[in-house]
Amino acid sequence: MIQVKIEGVVLDLKSNLPIIMLKDDRQRLLPISVGIFEAQAIAFALEKVHIPRPLTHDLISSIIEVLGSSLLRVEITELKGNTYFAWLVLKTMEGEETKIDSRPSDAIAIALRLKASIYANESLLIKKEIRSRPIDDNEIEQFKDMLNKLTPNMLWKYLKEKI
Amino acid sequence: MIQVKIEGVVLDLKSNLPIIMLKDDRQRLLPISVGIFEAQAIAFALEKVHIPRPLTHDLISSIIEVLGSSLLRVEITELKGNTYFAWLVLKTMEGEETKIDSRPSDAIAIALRLKASIYANESLLIKKEIRSRPIDDNEIEQFKDMLNKLTPNMLWKYLKEKI
Repeated sequence: MIQVKIEGVVLDLKSNLPIIMLKDDRQRLLPISVGIFEAQAIAFALEKVHIPRPLTHDLISSIIEVLGSSLLRVEITELKGNTYFAWLVLKTMEGEETKIDSRPSDAIAIALRLKASIYANESLLIKKEIRSRPIDDNEIEQFKDMLNKLTPNMLWKYLKEKI
Repeated sequence: MIQVKIEGVVLDLKSNLPIIMLKDDRQRLLPISVGIFEAQAIAFALEKVHIPRPLTHDLISSIIEVLGSSLLRVEITELKGNTYFAWLVLKTMEGEETKIDSRPSDAIAIALRLKASIYANESLLIKKEIRSRPIDDNEIEQFKDMLNKLTPNMLWKYLKEKI
């Protein structure tokens, strides 16, 4: 397993889906396509956006802490078809390690909140960038800005304006 | 606190937002407006839809169980402005009760999965139905059907077709 860090959240302009871009220290990439709400949960944590009420992944972090557990690390283990698999590796109150099956998007959103490291199976990392064309900084900023401002309840309104 | 049950998930035709309709045994209602993804998480549990990968609220249920805890009940406590507040009441491994601040939508989605009861402060229950016009069964069925089929990744595609 190789430690990876979050390079950013970018928008796949073909599918209109957000992609979480993970990168190791040798510049190898692991791009994971996620839903808009998981992307929002990750972007909020990256940008340290303060929300008055706990969002779902804030609630998960509270539950882990209140129950005397801690998140040791996230492991992204394999790709089956188009689906990535991951583990949340928790330390129980008795000090034992326990693994819980998770989608990588949820696992990453929780890891950011609890400041845990993310590891990926080396076979999943790719050397080349997969972009079909360069994405300019402006597009990324616009997308980040949109994610920052978007609440679930605003989604309908936003989409009506954009589509 | 009065026990309430989920009457259903309906669509507010004015705001286009889903509403979770809670009801006590005296037919008093508590309608809570939620985001589309929280509504999906609740509808999936109500309809016992099987998803191959754990959705976010399935993950929360796993975490609670794996850490030796259980969900005793959900308490919807108050309304401030337009925002409802709730507690997840968990039993720790030592048998103590602990409360975690949650949005009602998350709390209800978890309660359904862990078969816990939902209670609401009596002052929140209203005697009259708040619908401005009757919603016919067909509309409800169509909406349920849409929620059942919708995955986060399909949202963009769906909305493009509908809006």
